[in-house]
Amino acid sequence: MMTDSRIYTAALVIIGDEILSGRTQDKNVSQIALWLNIQGIRLREVRVVADDMDAIIEAVNILRARNDYLFTTGGIGPTHDDITVDAIAAALGVEVVIHPEASAVLHAYYETRGGINPGRLRMARVPDGADLIPNKMSGAPGIRHGNIFIMAGVPHITAGMLDALTGTLEGGAPLLSQQIGCWVAESEVAKLLGDTEKHHEGCQIGSYPFFREGKVGANFVVRTTDADKLAECVAALKLGLAELGYDTVDGGI
Amino acid sequence: MMTDSRIYTAALVIIGDEILSGRTQDKNVSQIALWLNIQGIRLREVRVVADDMDAIIEAVNILRARNDYLFTTGGIGPTHDDITVDAIAAALGVEVVIHPEASAVLHAYYETRGGINPGRLRMARVPDGADLIPNKMSGAPGIRHGNIFIMAGVPHITAGMLDALTGTLEGGAPLLSQQIGCWVAESEVAKLLGDTEKHHEGCQIGSYPFFREGKVGANFVVRTTDADKLAECVAALKLGLAELGYDTVDGGI
Repeated sequence: MMTDSRIYTAALVIIGDEILSGRTQDKNVSQIALWLNIQGIRLREVRVVADDMDAIIEAVNILRARNDYLFTTGGIGPTHDDITVDAIAAALGVEVVIHPEASAVLHAYYETRGGINPGRLRMARVPDGADLIPNKMSGAPGIRHGNIFIMAGVPHITAGMLDALTGTLEGGAPLLSQQIGCWVAESEVAKLLGDTEKHHEGCQIGSYPFFREGKVGANFVVRTTDADKLAECVAALKLGLAELGYDTVDGGI
Repeated sequence: MMTDSRIYTAALVIIGDEILSGRTQDKNVSQIALWLNIQGIRLREVRVVADDMDAIIEAVNILRARNDYLFTTGGIGPTHDDITVDAIAAALGVEVVIHPEASAVLHAYYETRGGINPGRLRMARVPDGADLIPNKMSGAPGIRHGNIFIMAGVPHITAGMLDALTGTLEGGAPLLSQQIGCWVAESEVAKLLGDTEKHHEGCQIGSYPFFREGKVGANFVVRTTDADKLAECVAALKLGLAELGYDTVDGGI
């Protein structure tokens, strides 16, 4: 496989009072992160902001400038609290316009579902200059404007939009990872973990403790873009744990 | 109940490569948001950042300045990737010191669990001037420094720390909310929702669509700090939906 030493990064802005109020458990961070990994893009930062123009504008403008890609989820429905398009247009300094193709899609979709109305037509509004992201699940499309990808908040609709984008974004070498599990208190092997990471440049080792069946354990995840380095680092970590008397479980516990 | 017209806000910084890589599904946003609501404090913004000094420092310094409270989760364990204390000390411009009480707690906790070691003693390190937040679940305490609350990443340990803080933070009137469910496409009633919100000052109406059992529906959540206004707004919304021919379900569907 060709490897590209440049790291491509993305940021995600989650827009919604329902997340900040605790009503709704977000599921988009993990699904977008996992999808980005496969595209060779790293999710570098996430912000959750309220349904508030200024908060959305601030987050969008800072994060789009310092990442290759910016994704947003939420706030693109038909109701008064859906202000994402207006906020992003304001952030970009462009007008909000009706996208003719989105309008046609919505007219067709609602023809057998009660007909179009002003609320539904709101979902054809885009920042001027935008393209559409197909949405197979419901009528309303997602929106792409430059390096900004405006997606639905409902996770299965977001999933469909990600599916439509698969393979269309330039990325670098995908981040590879391998997990091993061990029935050990991470604090017993903290020095080994740190030393192993230090001796394997380009690898990060994450340690994720748990308490199950009355026993403490930890999963260790090695992450790098290089398959050979990954194998070497995992082997060194397993050897180090074995020398301290701990068995390991490939893939984690 | 006394009502306080000032709104108290909090921000949350979630620290962890495991969230950004998609490996771990965050559960702390919703549990902290719900806990804050009860304290009369609103979660206004959340950031998820990598295990990276600069990223943590930037988020902490911006968010602590513009909110009454700042919470962090993650990165306070015994391993090399746990850098939260160092980053927050750097953000505050103070030294990292061993907290004598935390050291005593950890010595006692590990006395019957393999003994103290340098990795475990790392968990007694705090930004100079900090107090401890008790942790009944495992040895390592959380940390309070001014308006910053440094909590565990593992959700059940975070829960124990929140429990220890209950009732100790000054808040305002709690945000009240009431939900009603309706088997309607939200786009059919978008105008009613917007008009109802407009006519009930101080109330926000959120609309959360779903697709279940082959039918579309939506839950509508009214939020306000005033119990009378809440009842009035919910009644008006139910009446409006009834006039359009839709039954509603108290509490949501």
